[in-house]
Amino acid sequence: MKSPGLNHETVRELIRTATPDRILRVIGKSHPADIALLFRGLEPAEVRLLFDVLFSARRVAKTLKELPPDLLPDILALIEDEKVARVIAWADPDDAVTFTDSLAEERREKVLSLVDPDSRERVRQLISYPEGTVGRIMTTDYLALSPGITAQGAIDKIRERGELEAFFYLYVVEESGRLVGVVPIRNLVLAPQDRTLGEMMIAEPIRAEVTMDQEEAARLVSKYELLALPIVDHDGRLAGIITVDDVIDIIDKETTEDMYRMAGLEEEDRVFSPSMLSIRKRLPWTALNLLTAMLAASVVGFFESTIEKAVALAIFMPVVAGMGGNCGIQTLTVVVRGMALGELEFSSAWRAVLKEVTVGITVGCAAGVLVAIVAYLWKGNPVLGLVLASAMIINLFVAALAGTLIPLALKQARLDPALGSGIFVTTFTDVFGFLSFLGLATVFLRYLA
Amino acid sequence: MKSPGLNHETVRELIRTATPDRILRVIGKSHPADIALLFRGLEPAEVRLLFDVLFSARRVAKTLKELPPDLLPDILALIEDEKVARVIAWADPDDAVTFTDSLAEERREKVLSLVDPDSRERVRQLISYPEGTVGRIMTTDYLALSPGITAQGAIDKIRERGELEAFFYLYVVEESGRLVGVVPIRNLVLAPQDRTLGEMMIAEPIRAEVTMDQEEAARLVSKYELLALPIVDHDGRLAGIITVDDVIDIIDKETTEDMYRMAGLEEEDRVFSPSMLSIRKRLPWTALNLLTAMLAASVVGFFESTIEKAVALAIFMPVVAGMGGNCGIQTLTVVVRGMALGELEFSSAWRAVLKEVTVGITVGCAAGVLVAIVAYLWKGNPVLGLVLASAMIINLFVAALAGTLIPLALKQARLDPALGSGIFVTTFTDVFGFLSFLGLATVFLRYLA
Repeated sequence: MKSPGLNHETVRELIRTATPDRILRVIGKSHPADIALLFRGLEPAEVRLLFDVLFSARRVAKTLKELPPDLLPDILALIEDEKVARVIAWADPDDAVTFTDSLAEERREKVLSLVDPDSRERVRQLISYPEGTVGRIMTTDYLALSPGITAQGAIDKIRERGELEAFFYLYVVEESGRLVGVVPIRNLVLAPQDRTLGEMMIAEPIRAEVTMDQEEAARLVSKYELLALPIVDHDGRLAGIITVDDVIDIIDKETTEDMYRMAGLEEEDRVFSPSMLSIRKRLPWTALNLLTAMLAASVVGFFESTIEKAVALAIFMPVVAGMGGNCGIQTLTVVVRGMALGELEFSSAWRAVLKEVTVGITVGCAAGVLVAIVAYLWKGNPVLGLVLASAMIINLFVAALAGTLIPLALKQARLDPALGSGIFVTTFTDVFGFLSFLGLATVFLRYLA
Repeated sequence: MKSPGLNHETVRELIRTATPDRILRVIGKSHPADIALLFRGLEPAEVRLLFDVLFSARRVAKTLKELPPDLLPDILALIEDEKVARVIAWADPDDAVTFTDSLAEERREKVLSLVDPDSRERVRQLISYPEGTVGRIMTTDYLALSPGITAQGAIDKIRERGELEAFFYLYVVEESGRLVGVVPIRNLVLAPQDRTLGEMMIAEPIRAEVTMDQEEAARLVSKYELLALPIVDHDGRLAGIITVDDVIDIIDKETTEDMYRMAGLEEEDRVFSPSMLSIRKRLPWTALNLLTAMLAASVVGFFESTIEKAVALAIFMPVVAGMGGNCGIQTLTVVVRGMALGELEFSSAWRAVLKEVTVGITVGCAAGVLVAIVAYLWKGNPVLGLVLASAMIINLFVAALAGTLIPLALKQARLDPALGSGIFVTTFTDVFGFLSFLGLATVFLRYLA
């Protein structure tokens, strides 16, 4: 697989014109991740055809799991219940859950009833964990052996078992199912044949409970540079594992969520999702935007008679609001990212607030002086410059406070620290920017009019 | 290691009061990632003491590599050249490069001259690759064998070689050094002893050239769910590998970069970096902000006499600008994230532009109608409402165009698509928002004044 990737046009042409055998010969050697990309932009009939080709070659489960999350539900919606049920039964347990989750709700029970009882039970078990927990995305496809087994015995077991999805560690469990250790496969290679797993295992390995937040578990894997993390139930019994490739997916997903939530976007709203979906998802946030913009407008409205007497104020309103907004978003970005990377904890939050306020006031002074000079040169009025500079300093102070305290407050309320935070921060800077600028202007109006 | 983590206060107390032996006994069993966290917030003398304890236990290289990138230079600055040179010599090759990179420039040659010639040559070789390329961060700590060696022969070689940093694959190379295959370690376990590597290897594996962009290489590992990616020179000879934990670091780093650049922030500006550093890094961006805000102000200034005659316009200026800014940032976020995740390529860019424009205009119509009603109810003037609604639609159209075209243009110019993009997008929406709102108001002024 020297040059990965497939020529989409060639394959689409094939799907339209060639026999299933021919299609399979062409795509057969490609990686599932490349085959999955072919589904994008196909007509429904072509989707069904490509699905059937992969289905008959038993490669459909491995391919569908590579689909981006916005595409999978649309593809599955085109496929008959019986075939979806077969895919769920063939899939690795964690992928089976993803497929089931991607079915329209009213179809789910129907499809599951067609899955063999064992696989169905497994899916039901995993799907019972709340969304966002590590239990919901773990796989039960691991090899657990008891501590008395020898290295050679373990190798024999591995040979018996055949292919495992991800296979870096052997898990060592007591009779009760309690996890007591792990053995990296490479150590198994190097160990004398008669050494027991109990003797060579890493005892009491890092693990996570089924109810742990996915992102927290992902950060454990990343921090300790693990390839897989064992997941245990409340009694310490091994319940599943997550692997490092899951972790990359979680980190990507959580980061998208952070960026999206700061901007007021919903996760399904991707670059190529249907316009109607994007519109529907953005309208509520737009309504919220509008509401907060009206709040800022009403502050300005309060000072209508001041502006009437000194119209030059209207010119500098965007400067005060714009600078406040941008500096607030800078602080917010630093804080939200610091939280996501685990650099900022509640216990040290006051240090972050203090630092950002220091930075905000200093930058505000510098920008205030600059803008005062510009205003003086433009309008020839030193008081306008002073009012503008003072408003700028006050507003960048507010920007620093809002940019740190809003995500902290959201986290304290057990919400996502990024949730709508960009909108809230700019509301604060708009409102307090106009309030301080137009308020000060009203006080010094006789020097401005 | 059942409950990872160390009590920082306890350890700090120890560092102040206990003997090195005692300190080592307490922290000795902890993971380097946890020990590294202890360095934060220590006094210089305490840093040196903790360093020396780890140094004498030969654990300092493994610990320092876990330090966050903003802390490492400060720690190394406190340590004598000779000791830093020893750390570089002990470290894995990729970490040795990181350490060398973190030294003050004027110290670098001096310290490298104290490193043994072999390690020094290795560091010089890796550090010669440009920043941002995969060559710069790869490690040369891998095991490469020729295709004729048997499974048992390979296992013997592994035993001889001892510990390797990351060890998931054996690399199979020809005499010329050309990479021809990989053998996953688990396959080695399962293979008959006399099978040759050439027979069991995965031929022509996915690889990256030394000059490939780090993020691109990281996406290859993530897409194909690899544990390590071989890096080859221009002649296809194996030059190094990157492992999946490097990939997580790259993805985190690149995402931070995207979020930071959208907001106009520099990477070194972290939640706990010194205030002076943050101020210094933010001032140039603030100056740019100010410049663009002045541009918006001058547009408003152009319409000063219009505002003089209809002061109500000043009230709704923040609504037009605010809505445009927020919608522009929404589009920008979707596009920048789509590019980072590889969902958006140039070839399909026009589809993204078309979609965002459709969404922008539709949302603009909805918001425009709402805001027109509010303006009518508040100010009793239907023309004001109409002007406002039209300006809103025009501005959300501009927001969609700017939000898609700015990152595309930056990428076309081989710059980071996120670079300052938030500032540029809001400049466009401010300028065009005021232009359309106040321009239309000037045309219909007789109905407004």
